[in-house]
Amino acid sequence: MNTLRFDFTNVLADAVGPKHGLTEAELAAITGPSRQALARVQARRDADLRWLDLPYQADVLSAIESFAASVRGRFDNVVVCGIGGSALGTIALHAALNAPTHDLAPTGGIPRLFVLDNVDPDWIADVLGRLDPARTLVNVISKSGGTAETMSQFLIFRDRLVKALGEEAHREHLVVTTDEHKGVLREIVEREGYASFVVPDGVGGRFSVLSPVGLLPAALVGIDVRELLAGAAYMDQRCRVEAFDENPAQVHAAVQYLMQTAKQKPIAVTFAYSHRLRLAADWYAQLLAESIGKRADRDGNDVFAGPTPVRAVGVTDQHSQVQLYVEGPFDKWFTLLSVERPERTLEIPHAFADLEGVAYLGGRDMGELFHAERDGTRIALTEAGRPNATLSLERVDAHGLGQLIQMLEVSVAIMGEHYGVDAFDQPGVEAGKIAAYALMGRAGYEERRAAIEAASGRAPRVV
Amino acid sequence: MNTLRFDFTNVLADAVGPKHGLTEAELAAITGPSRQALARVQARRDADLRWLDLPYQADVLSAIESFAASVRGRFDNVVVCGIGGSALGTIALHAALNAPTHDLAPTGGIPRLFVLDNVDPDWIADVLGRLDPARTLVNVISKSGGTAETMSQFLIFRDRLVKALGEEAHREHLVVTTDEHKGVLREIVEREGYASFVVPDGVGGRFSVLSPVGLLPAALVGIDVRELLAGAAYMDQRCRVEAFDENPAQVHAAVQYLMQTAKQKPIAVTFAYSHRLRLAADWYAQLLAESIGKRADRDGNDVFAGPTPVRAVGVTDQHSQVQLYVEGPFDKWFTLLSVERPERTLEIPHAFADLEGVAYLGGRDMGELFHAERDGTRIALTEAGRPNATLSLERVDAHGLGQLIQMLEVSVAIMGEHYGVDAFDQPGVEAGKIAAYALMGRAGYEERRAAIEAASGRAPRVV
Repeated sequence: MNTLRFDFTNVLADAVGPKHGLTEAELAAITGPSRQALARVQARRDADLRWLDLPYQADVLSAIESFAASVRGRFDNVVVCGIGGSALGTIALHAALNAPTHDLAPTGGIPRLFVLDNVDPDWIADVLGRLDPARTLVNVISKSGGTAETMSQFLIFRDRLVKALGEEAHREHLVVTTDEHKGVLREIVEREGYASFVVPDGVGGRFSVLSPVGLLPAALVGIDVRELLAGAAYMDQRCRVEAFDENPAQVHAAVQYLMQTAKQKPIAVTFAYSHRLRLAADWYAQLLAESIGKRADRDGNDVFAGPTPVRAVGVTDQHSQVQLYVEGPFDKWFTLLSVERPERTLEIPHAFADLEGVAYLGGRDMGELFHAERDGTRIALTEAGRPNATLSLERVDAHGLGQLIQMLEVSVAIMGEHYGVDAFDQPGVEAGKIAAYALMGRAGYEERRAAIEAASGRAPRVV
Repeated sequence: MNTLRFDFTNVLADAVGPKHGLTEAELAAITGPSRQALARVQARRDADLRWLDLPYQADVLSAIESFAASVRGRFDNVVVCGIGGSALGTIALHAALNAPTHDLAPTGGIPRLFVLDNVDPDWIADVLGRLDPARTLVNVISKSGGTAETMSQFLIFRDRLVKALGEEAHREHLVVTTDEHKGVLREIVEREGYASFVVPDGVGGRFSVLSPVGLLPAALVGIDVRELLAGAAYMDQRCRVEAFDENPAQVHAAVQYLMQTAKQKPIAVTFAYSHRLRLAADWYAQLLAESIGKRADRDGNDVFAGPTPVRAVGVTDQHSQVQLYVEGPFDKWFTLLSVERPERTLEIPHAFADLEGVAYLGGRDMGELFHAERDGTRIALTEAGRPNATLSLERVDAHGLGQLIQMLEVSVAIMGEHYGVDAFDQPGVEAGKIAAYALMGRAGYEERRAAIEAASGRAPRVV
């Protein structure tokens, strides 16, 4: 079976010394708090942390599979209008489970996927111009229905569809994922009669990939969402285990917390030695940064907490970031994402046998080189006193991705307990949003606009 | 004229307070050292820092333009086999200057571009399977000719071309960029008679984008390389100016150095508010990390220096990283990349006029929303005491990109002087490379292999 494994050998003092690595005493001291943290998280399963139960939604799964089956073959393009938690999981799943060049030349009747998680007109206008409305399905995703980026895209795509296909037929090209009852988008669904799915309560954006937010677009591009949830359910069981040493979420969360607080490593590098898994690092970067990056602890004291996620790709970043990783400040720890069995083989042919500089490569599989470089980097990091762990899958498949997602979500929930912060809010994004509304001249934000204009009198310093 | 501007208003104490922002006294104190640093860098222009003069290589430019013209219309695909400095600049230029969806459906006779800066067989085998050899041109790039990743790819693509097109004709599909005299790749060029270009001496990988390393693939995908160099030459003149306040490279380098050393901000976030410029952040991440991330200063003392580059995209990361940026540790400073005039307009249509939650968007251009969000983020960061600067272009064109590249290269060279490190070597990448060679069983590395095997007796800790 394809089981997710967390190898933390090289974060231990044995491997990198006690200044940078964890001692057995430090690990032993956190097992009690870890068990308590897990218990507090699991106790909220039926209350506000409903995302823990997403692996078990049989009805939703069937509804999504039916919808995907009902539109099969009708569309060449699936467009997701969504951002943040409504985009990053879907992007990661598509990159992991469809062929890397799928969108260049779709095969097997599976549409191209465009996840539009920005509002740069240079990008959106370009995408819009390439798509045949008659062959395009748009999935609009916003829990609140109030996300300005997503609603702008919705208005633009809706207009394009109506003009191309007519008021009636355009409805077949839109499917909405939003709150069951509340919000502008739900109101629009009811007026227009769009197909729709529900973002359930107790499922925050960054914990929503296994809800219809991620499952629907995944199913539309041919991903086996049943296997995805089966993997997540399997991992959910592993993540309920009380024994610290047997629960990967407990160990992972403890290592992250101790690396930052006991070993002064504020930077958490996810180093994906897998082209397919490289965008899973972006998904995890949101999960970690938005959950733990908090000004206040639960008692309201200023703590300015949070690790900074950094995303790297192996072997690519060996030629870009590894110089810094091996020789720079001791302010980082590393998690390699690793796949033991690539799907493809690719033999390097023999040639130029008299030139030693290339001859040693002949007859080897490219995967051997890839793994030798991964192992070489792991050795170099360890020898330089840089703690590094490895999250590995035997192979990249839907079951394995489901495991990875569920494990990291539970881990981050446990981390919230260790750090003493609320892992499920995001108060720090409001200020920028309100300033943007004010600058856009939205009703109700006039006072903020006046304040911004008054404050902007500072003389600019420009060169 | 499209002039690069560096706005550092919000890194000053006036904007974010003296604990996190630079005081006028701190800026004044660095002007002398900065002028001296600049003088030391410029004095090496004709000696070992030959990359400073890349904007002025008229002959090379003509040769590249001629080669590109001679193959125009013959290829649908350009494949670059190269990694690190042989890849990141090209990736950034293509993303900035060709349409975002160009590679999905090439227009104007411009080929698709594949820059293969990894050796994951799942990716490389997939790309290889999609390309028609008869319509593919492969550019192999390695200064030394010894880069294992690049040489593996070369052997694989050469074999594919020979089998598809024959021993004779395959030569028309390969062009090599390497050292003028030395190395295996130059030897192969001479045996096989491949077309070739030169990576000049005094031009390290991460400073090579304006040499044939970046210029050739750029020209092959229709980029105006003459304008690119004109922009770089214009910026070279600006970067020679002695007066601190008038030289963007001096100011930029000083701000980076002071942010890390005087204000304890080890993390440098490049926050690209531009889909087109988002990959320029990856290019800069290599330049910064590999140049300044050094264990030893020039006297050989351990300093473990170096800022950690982090790449973010606006508005996307407002929904992922901004929570951490606004509320987390005060260990970061920010450089927004900004484009004042997007190329495209995209009006948000009026609809649902009675629903205030969307109605305020109707009739606005998407670019207005994009800029309001950028400004909102800038305001929120500043009000939270987070120093932020803005590097802006009026628009994204080849001239502007040339300016950006030259400015950042000169800035990093000056930073090397401030930090007291050699900005032009990368000793820290050797250890991993040697370990990989040993694991691959390459001749001459037997001893290292034995040492690795002896050391790997540590009991694994896995959950």
